[in-house]
Amino acid sequence: MIKNYRLIISYDGTNYSGWAGQKNTDKTVQGKIEKTLERLLGVGQGELSLTGAGRTDSGVHANAMTANVHLDTEMSPEDIRKKLNRYLPEDICIKEIDIVSDRFHSRYNAKGKTYVYTCYAGDGKPVFDRKYVYALDRQPDIEAMRRAAAYLVGTHDFMCFCGNSKMKKSTVRTINGLDIDRRGDYITFTVSGDGFLQNMVRIIVGTLLETGFGLRSAENIAEVLDARDRSKAGFTAPAQGLRLEKVYY
Amino acid sequence: MIKNYRLIISYDGTNYSGWAGQKNTDKTVQGKIEKTLERLLGVGQGELSLTGAGRTDSGVHANAMTANVHLDTEMSPEDIRKKLNRYLPEDICIKEIDIVSDRFHSRYNAKGKTYVYTCYAGDGKPVFDRKYVYALDRQPDIEAMRRAAAYLVGTHDFMCFCGNSKMKKSTVRTINGLDIDRRGDYITFTVSGDGFLQNMVRIIVGTLLETGFGLRSAENIAEVLDARDRSKAGFTAPAQGLRLEKVYY
Repeated sequence: MIKNYRLIISYDGTNYSGWAGQKNTDKTVQGKIEKTLERLLGVGQGELSLTGAGRTDSGVHANAMTANVHLDTEMSPEDIRKKLNRYLPEDICIKEIDIVSDRFHSRYNAKGKTYVYTCYAGDGKPVFDRKYVYALDRQPDIEAMRRAAAYLVGTHDFMCFCGNSKMKKSTVRTINGLDIDRRGDYITFTVSGDGFLQNMVRIIVGTLLETGFGLRSAENIAEVLDARDRSKAGFTAPAQGLRLEKVYY
Repeated sequence: MIKNYRLIISYDGTNYSGWAGQKNTDKTVQGKIEKTLERLLGVGQGELSLTGAGRTDSGVHANAMTANVHLDTEMSPEDIRKKLNRYLPEDICIKEIDIVSDRFHSRYNAKGKTYVYTCYAGDGKPVFDRKYVYALDRQPDIEAMRRAAAYLVGTHDFMCFCGNSKMKKSTVRTINGLDIDRRGDYITFTVSGDGFLQNMVRIIVGTLLETGFGLRSAENIAEVLDARDRSKAGFTAPAQGLRLEKVYY
């Protein structure tokens, strides 16, 4: 009997061209898991289709991506999880698998997501976590960034923070929270919202950092939002500092 | 004027054949720093000699290796540090540099060292720190390991825990502390002592894990010590889980 399985997945995105991609699926996390599942269950190549809650850019990590897949197997979810983890490369881990309602769809049913962006602002070099942080060469003003971030919370047209210039659908999204914290040498941006446009978190972080560096005022963020013009926002912070923290349903 | 500089260095040992080595020095951390310093100060290749507090095996990491080098330069220590960090690869960081007494010798003056060995004993996979931990496939009994570890604290002949079968010098060492802690999915072995033989911490951890897995009794450790025979001790735990935490003077 075909059942619907929900997977919670963590991955180091360093060596992948993102969660999903049109072309070489062997270089995507989704493609890697699909192929491993197909081999594990002995079904033909390309027969299984894993649906993720959203895409992550090339090089972006995930602490807990949610995905679902319909499988016809008698293997227990725990057995599938353990075997999958053994066959998958060491940069992908299936944290949980359970059987859910046939109607569950990891993308359509997602109510929101939390992303965390991590910067290193110490005096040395982040030797051990260098692939998961963006190392800054200056100290940003945290308070200035917080003032700027306040303008982004709420429902807005985030066109200016969208990396896809050909985006035809609505660019209106709601950000429920945007917290900036400093702990020792690390600065984290925790962004929660109902949905995110391509590169949105990375452009928000780049723009906030420009505020923190004194290159634009906190108030300028309101103008950027109003402009609905990508060129008015800041740079796209590097992918490596970003991770999808959690998907809400 | 030639002055003596002390360096505190952290490195990810994954891509190096250890701190020092006879042959290809470009693949050692010491060789890498020496060459970078030579280029920075414009002195001939092979002229500078960086002395480390001790060697670390291929693949072993360091949070704070101490080293010293005699340099003839007018550059400030802080300037040297910043420039070195810029030119060194991202897996090596010079955390501190200061001028010390001419007589300071990082190896001869070292009074002791602390090593930390980290195991992952969770149900998933250590995706983000996989290069810095040893992932176990079973749950070791922490209390049994602590009972066994107690036999190792003090001054003993650690011949059985020495990876160099041709060792001709004394194999007597003093272990001041050997703490085993569990925090969530991670088990750490913190070992402090006046000096360590080749592979010593890794063989100790391997032997303690065998105790934790019920393959040998805690009391057996006393017999192993008495035997002075490497074959009586356990396996050599993989290099990647080990880091030199600190050197004491």
